Amino acid sequence: MTTAEFGVVGLAVMGRNLALNVASRGYKVALYNRTSGRTDDLVEKHPDSGFVPSYSIEEFVASIQKPRRILLMVKAGAGTDAVIEELLPYLDKGDILIDGGNTFFEDTIRRSNKLEKSGINFIGMGVSGGELGALQGPSMMPGGQREAYDLVEPILKEIAAKAPEDGKPTVTYIGPNGAGHYVKMVHNGIEYGDMQLIAESYDLLKRVLKLDKDGLAKTFADWNEGELDSYLIEITADILTRDDDLGSGKPMVDMILDRAGNKGTGKWSSQSALEVGAPQSLITESVYARYISALKTDRLAAADVLVGPDYDFDGDVAATVEDIRQALYFGKVMSYAQGFDQLRMASDHYDWSLPFGELAQLWRAGAIIRAQFLQRITDAYDEKPDLHNLLLAPYFKKIAESYQASARRVIALATAAGVPVPSLSAAVAYYDSYRSPVLPANLIQAQRDYFGAHTYERVDKPAGEMYHYSWYDEA
Amino acid sequence: MTTAEFGVVGLAVMGRNLALNVASRGYKVALYNRTSGRTDDLVEKHPDSGFVPSYSIEEFVASIQKPRRILLMVKAGAGTDAVIEELLPYLDKGDILIDGGNTFFEDTIRRSNKLEKSGINFIGMGVSGGELGALQGPSMMPGGQREAYDLVEPILKEIAAKAPEDGKPTVTYIGPNGAGHYVKMVHNGIEYGDMQLIAESYDLLKRVLKLDKDGLAKTFADWNEGELDSYLIEITADILTRDDDLGSGKPMVDMILDRAGNKGTGKWSSQSALEVGAPQSLITESVYARYISALKTDRLAAADVLVGPDYDFDGDVAATVEDIRQALYFGKVMSYAQGFDQLRMASDHYDWSLPFGELAQLWRAGAIIRAQFLQRITDAYDEKPDLHNLLLAPYFKKIAESYQASARRVIALATAAGVPVPSLSAAVAYYDSYRSPVLPANLIQAQRDYFGAHTYERVDKPAGEMYHYSWYDEA
Repeated sequence: MTTAEFGVVGLAVMGRNLALNVASRGYKVALYNRTSGRTDDLVEKHPDSGFVPSYSIEEFVASIQKPRRILLMVKAGAGTDAVIEELLPYLDKGDILIDGGNTFFEDTIRRSNKLEKSGINFIGMGVSGGELGALQGPSMMPGGQREAYDLVEPILKEIAAKAPEDGKPTVTYIGPNGAGHYVKMVHNGIEYGDMQLIAESYDLLKRVLKLDKDGLAKTFADWNEGELDSYLIEITADILTRDDDLGSGKPMVDMILDRAGNKGTGKWSSQSALEVGAPQSLITESVYARYISALKTDRLAAADVLVGPDYDFDGDVAATVEDIRQALYFGKVMSYAQGFDQLRMASDHYDWSLPFGELAQLWRAGAIIRAQFLQRITDAYDEKPDLHNLLLAPYFKKIAESYQASARRVIALATAAGVPVPSLSAAVAYYDSYRSPVLPANLIQAQRDYFGAHTYERVDKPAGEMYHYSWYDEA
Repeated sequence: MTTAEFGVVGLAVMGRNLALNVASRGYKVALYNRTSGRTDDLVEKHPDSGFVPSYSIEEFVASIQKPRRILLMVKAGAGTDAVIEELLPYLDKGDILIDGGNTFFEDTIRRSNKLEKSGINFIGMGVSGGELGALQGPSMMPGGQREAYDLVEPILKEIAAKAPEDGKPTVTYIGPNGAGHYVKMVHNGIEYGDMQLIAESYDLLKRVLKLDKDGLAKTFADWNEGELDSYLIEITADILTRDDDLGSGKPMVDMILDRAGNKGTGKWSSQSALEVGAPQSLITESVYARYISALKTDRLAAADVLVGPDYDFDGDVAATVEDIRQALYFGKVMSYAQGFDQLRMASDHYDWSLPFGELAQLWRAGAIIRAQFLQRITDAYDEKPDLHNLLLAPYFKKIAESYQASARRVIALATAAGVPVPSLSAAVAYYDSYRSPVLPANLIQAQRDYFGAHTYERVDKPAGEMYHYSWYDEA
């Protein structure tokens, strides 16, 4: 009975597609799902896949060769804990559980520590690429015991997407315990940032430059031919060509309600940035932009009451389109600089030794944020493995410096026109803060010392030496 | 032996000053500190205060009348749990513990639930005003059992600051369990926002308008005479008059290192805003501004490498000073609108029924954020107790509308000059988002549906009805 080389628990669309992907590489895959219908359906629809279906956890575990490699694709949270509890009595020392869900990294750390006591290996693996990616080749971010990773690496490399630049599979060892899920979380945060920057650009093209459907679609299609070439720009161009499928005769995008949902990973990413001390403002503004979009009723009420500026654009449309393109790329550079800075700080905080250059490499295909641009990040880390911030690498420094004028003009334009650009504004504020040798935090330190005796450091004394001024004695 | 009417555990400066404050109102106060030195010192220095010192927890508890009212002023975190564990064996049902530390509200909820099982009442109380406030009259935000609050209210009202407007004490019942510490946390977040807006204004006055020491001090002193009248503007003006106390001959503020510290409450406030779905961008940008200020070494390295814009101010100085003043007030209005929106969402989330108008009232004196402005918030809620957002109240709507032009000009100026204004930018982006009937989140929903089949709502169908477009079939 112990014939399967890999097991999958949880056969909703992601688990199902990953099982099919593994089976398509010639592996014998054991299947288990809480309700048998999904198992039967998958086996019936793919009679030649060699699937080994099971209808009890005991039978499922027994059907897999040791050390067992079992992928869990269940609802993140309590569902993951429940499945692990069910599996545990039947597992042997050295077996490997892989959690491929969108799990909060602290849960992965907790589970990893707990399972280690029973000698069970645990890999928390971020999976990007959606349903289609799962089937055809996702980007994967596995974290856990290195020796356990080595035992699953051959399979992961086969099912991964392959980068168009060099054919490399988009999977690599990320680091211990929660490192994989953490990196996936920041990947998702970066995705929020990319999407918000695109949305702000679209809003300006539409509301300020008054481009029509064709003009909008063509602009993004043009942008996708150049340095902005990426999956998200590509699908934006495609989306903007579509007409309402319910026949209103209007562009599809105009019929979609402007109330953005979220599944929490952007939120986690920002909360963690706040925790590790990383100034990750652009992604956070993107999360808040979704929150405020969700307050549709409030906004409709406020729109009737709160007046904005009078503004009519009378500038050069083509030049402004190019300004917006450069501003978008400038914003993207800042967002990735912040995101990689967060990864660096988290790597120190949790002692993970994250492989920064390889992260960009494995997002080059499969991942939602796949883009030509990522190769530049890999190149930057190849050239300088201990690169402290992306902005200090020649390519990014050049983009920042040469596109900043456009970004500044676009902010002035948007602000005058009353069109919100929270993420682009955060990008420029970050750039100007990061390159400021002196920030006004000296005044903040003076205030804190004044009202709370919190003390301060001095510019002419060693860092860490604390001083206090007798504000009240002299007052 | 049971003579004391109130007890204080923890006699560091805040506990000591609150004990003195209570004793000064004629109450007999029992004292306990882990090390006896602080207890002896306090009693010796204030022989007429009628203090009842104890040198064991048992003796301390026995010295207080039932139901006992005991204030804990110990280091927030494990220290609080340890003291509660020590006290518990000696307490009786109905006794009241008051945690006056800067405690994370979720810890207060946890402790409240645990103590309730032993019949012990627990009040989590935020205390604002620093050391001097503790001694002379703090602003206090107590949350816990209503009936327990009623038993401590007479003492709290006596020791509280009194609002200059109407003489009312700055304390009121906030709500159940963690409500008091939550409100204090948002108070601190608002304090971060106020300080950052002042810092950005100071930076522009200094770096763009090139005001000298006297010009800077005079500007803030002038501002404090008008609608910006507040403790933080007042101390800023005072700080800017001071010379280096170590004799460099330079202004004191120029000798203070621009690396801001923080004690975590601003961070918690932002993390919670992200949790409850509140778009609280301005406070969060203030927290990130402190984080980036702390990266002094990085910034010095980047300043040598990253080029900014060439800019020389050639406008009207006096007019621009007034623009900056209006922009600061505009930013403050947005910050409080966001902060009170966060309180409203948290109140719903945790089922607290927070008394919004009274919150502003009890910050009018004692609190670090005390300001003339707060009376306007109280008035707004008095006029409309179910006010949904401060911006919809006539006074704040008027300020927002009439000062927005200045705020927009200041952003254009700062952005052109390369001086970061992250919090002011967040303020304008929030205003423009909040009053936008349509935001570009429709495109974000289209993207999410495209790559993840997340579905969307339509503008012409009831909210909550989800649709999916067959993006791939037509592609």
